[in-house]
Amino acid sequence: MNNHKPYYAVIFTSTQTETIEGYAEMAQHMETLAKKQEGFLGIDSARNDVGITVSYWKTLDAIKAWKANSEHLLAQQKGREHWYNWYNVRICKVEREYEFEK
Amino acid sequence: MNNHKPYYAVIFTSTQTETIEGYAEMAQHMETLAKKQEGFLGIDSARNDVGITVSYWKTLDAIKAWKANSEHLLAQQKGREHWYNWYNVRICKVEREYEFEK
Repeated sequence: MNNHKPYYAVIFTSTQTETIEGYAEMAQHMETLAKKQEGFLGIDSARNDVGITVSYWKTLDAIKAWKANSEHLLAQQKGREHWYNWYNVRICKVEREYEFEK
Repeated sequence: MNNHKPYYAVIFTSTQTETIEGYAEMAQHMETLAKKQEGFLGIDSARNDVGITVSYWKTLDAIKAWKANSEHLLAQQKGREHWYNWYNVRICKVEREYEFEK
C-alpha cells in the first residue's frame, strides 16, 4: 500500500472462546462490508494464539462511521457475547512506512 | 496494556519464502532481545498467509534504537536474503485504545 500519510490503522487483537459457531461467516461478512466503506484502504489478518486484524483507513471519521455501522454494531455485540474472551482496539496514526520486495 | 498515550506501534507485515531454515530460532531470539530494549512495551504476533507482528514502544527514539541494534540489523539482512518475499513496516502513533474482557 502506498497511501498518503498520515492515514490511520485500527489494530484489533483478540482471544477467542471455545464457541466458534457462526464466527468465520461473520468475520468474512464484516470484511466484505468494511471493504465497501468510504475511506477503507486495506486489511491484514492472522490468528494463532492471538488474533490480529489491522484495518487501514483514510480518516478518523471513516473509522468512526465503520464502528457505528448497524451490521457491524450487531457483530460487535455477538462478538462480546459469544466469540471473544478478550479484545483490544487501538486507533493509530500511521506516520511512516517502508516496504521491501524481493 | 494500559499505557500512557500517545505511545507507538510498529506494524510489521510479511510474506515468507520457502526457505524457513533458521527463521523460527531467529524470530524467537529477536523477540527476547526486543523485550530487553529500553522503551519496549509489548508485542503481538500471528501468521497465516500473511504474518503480522505488532510491537509497542514508549517513544520513536526507542523504535529507532531497536532498528539500529546490531544483532537486529543482522537479522533484518538475513530476513531480506532468505526468509521474506515481501515485508512492510508502519510506524504508528497510538492515539486511543479500549479493551473488552469477559
